[in-house]
Amino acid sequence: MNELLKNHIRKITPVNDDEFDAISTYFTAQRFKKHQFLVQTGKPAPYEFFVTKGLLKSEVTDSSGKTHILQFAYEEWWISDMQAFNSGEPASLDIDCLENTEVLSITYDAKERLCANFRCMEYFFRKKSNAGNIALQKRVLMLMQASAAERYEQLIHQYPQMHARISKKLIAACLGITRETLSRLSNS
Amino acid sequence: MNELLKNHIRKITPVNDDEFDAISTYFTAQRFKKHQFLVQTGKPAPYEFFVTKGLLKSEVTDSSGKTHILQFAYEEWWISDMQAFNSGEPASLDIDCLENTEVLSITYDAKERLCANFRCMEYFFRKKSNAGNIALQKRVLMLMQASAAERYEQLIHQYPQMHARISKKLIAACLGITRETLSRLSNS
Repeated sequence: MNELLKNHIRKITPVNDDEFDAISTYFTAQRFKKHQFLVQTGKPAPYEFFVTKGLLKSEVTDSSGKTHILQFAYEEWWISDMQAFNSGEPASLDIDCLENTEVLSITYDAKERLCANFRCMEYFFRKKSNAGNIALQKRVLMLMQASAAERYEQLIHQYPQMHARISKKLIAACLGITRETLSRLSNS
Repeated sequence: MNELLKNHIRKITPVNDDEFDAISTYFTAQRFKKHQFLVQTGKPAPYEFFVTKGLLKSEVTDSSGKTHILQFAYEEWWISDMQAFNSGEPASLDIDCLENTEVLSITYDAKERLCANFRCMEYFFRKKSNAGNIALQKRVLMLMQASAAERYEQLIHQYPQMHARISKKLIAACLGITRETLSRLSNS
């Protein structure tokens, strides 16, 4: 599973095998079962996760009890509660497994040490953070779009494997539309 | 106005005066009048802006012609179309001035050279990008909240100077509520 992280880093910055062996010691491999939680609202969220196998979702439950999906993550995606991870405050969202999942996890302190010790990783995480910004900006603009059809098109573009792996119920929850509206869109 | 940037950087990482003098050469000071646009939908967005004086908003217009405010920015905030700035693609939002505004602008290439030449700036921009991620995650969660009252509370927390500088009409547009609903919330 470390090969996936090595190749993922090499898409952004060169690292040789010896460097990567040292870099990989900052991460811990973890396995989770389908339906298991990695982050829970109100609890600490000390890890950022790099998905090596499986599928996760992050979601928030509003004061009326309705859940809204923030993002999905599968192989080569990073996921965490950014606010909680960076501030040490309790999580404001839940992250759970839609499939049996394997991740490489890193704590805030380990990430800071990794960046301090490896200049290439400071560069890598700056670039990944920018990519996260872009994805979140798209998510905000998607939520603001009036048309469900446009939101649907953007979601397919963001998650090419969506239909094969994510249920219609969850896709609808991510788009903030009913399953009936989703069926009309996906058949049109 | 460079003093503001120097102190802003020093909140995150130490830089001495000589280093800062070199760092500041990567930025260009620009002035804009109230109502002037810094970024326009469909056009290139080659700059990231650090606000030294004034007030800006970024907004998107949906396919039905309705505008939605993504963010406000005043002194010591950074603003750009992240997607367009980082990819070189055309902007998908507008950024314009709500007051006469002064900024320090930096191009994508200058930012990359700055980070390559000054390790402290690579660290600085990684941290700022994380902060941007947190702000955008909050914005997404805010948009997903069912209750207008909760969205209003979060917005006040994010922009303490909001009521003094931003019109009720724009605050309502940012929250996605009517001015009447906003009046009820701000009087309660």
